[in-house]
Amino acid sequence: MTYDPNNPFAKILRGELPAHRVYEDDRTFAFMDLMPQAEGHTLVIPKAAAMNLFDLEASELAATIQTTRLVAAAVKKAFSAEGVMIAQLNGAAAGQSVFHLHFHILPRNDGVDLRMHVRNMADPKVLSEHAQRIRSCLPT
Amino acid sequence: MTYDPNNPFAKILRGELPAHRVYEDDRTFAFMDLMPQAEGHTLVIPKAAAMNLFDLEASELAATIQTTRLVAAAVKKAFSAEGVMIAQLNGAAAGQSVFHLHFHILPRNDGVDLRMHVRNMADPKVLSEHAQRIRSCLPT
Repeated sequence: MTYDPNNPFAKILRGELPAHRVYEDDRTFAFMDLMPQAEGHTLVIPKAAAMNLFDLEASELAATIQTTRLVAAAVKKAFSAEGVMIAQLNGAAAGQSVFHLHFHILPRNDGVDLRMHVRNMADPKVLSEHAQRIRSCLPT
Repeated sequence: MTYDPNNPFAKILRGELPAHRVYEDDRTFAFMDLMPQAEGHTLVIPKAAAMNLFDLEASELAATIQTTRLVAAAVKKAFSAEGVMIAQLNGAAAGQSVFHLHFHILPRNDGVDLRMHVRNMADPKVLSEHAQRIRSCLPT
């Protein structure tokens, strides 16, 4: 299996598909998951073409985890979450469905289970508002 | 809440508690999870005192994700896993139970669910054999 330049995240990076953008720098991009497993579910991706964790140059990987941490802090604040889970899935057997490396940021609260196997798109207006809320919690 | 220097992983790093060691370098340490959610469940930690993702110097975080990737590739190979999941939990509400930052490496195979809420220690002989199997799959 090789990297498919027409995967949805590659299209987002090229502006061929829309996304609810949360953060962007030279090497990384963060946006709302369209099928959130929790309110505030955000994805962080490298701009480099990489299928998975094993497929990225070391400095790009470092940049991606730094952005993940930066955005996770903002997500936690934006949703007043007690905790935050980072998940990164490699291979269909691990649950990966888009084959461009991504880190999931999932706000967690006591007594609120993750929504597994979500199959419905969230309301774009809600995602847009959530993205704005997270952006407002990023350091200026 | 502040970092507790007597948490179990700090004790492992000081050699005050045993661990089934998989990998070690100047800044990071990897070992078998005592209550594996999947065969081959391995943890990667920084040696620096850090409670969670938000509590670690950037270069230490970069070193920790690099070791996570290195060990994840070996775990995947050692257990002939189709996929591998990386999970990193921040805060009790997210499922964090030891408050020293750690990345979980979980081999995944189609049709094999993760064992959630594991409460039993694995057989130390099995973990020792698994650690050896992973070490043998690390680059030399």
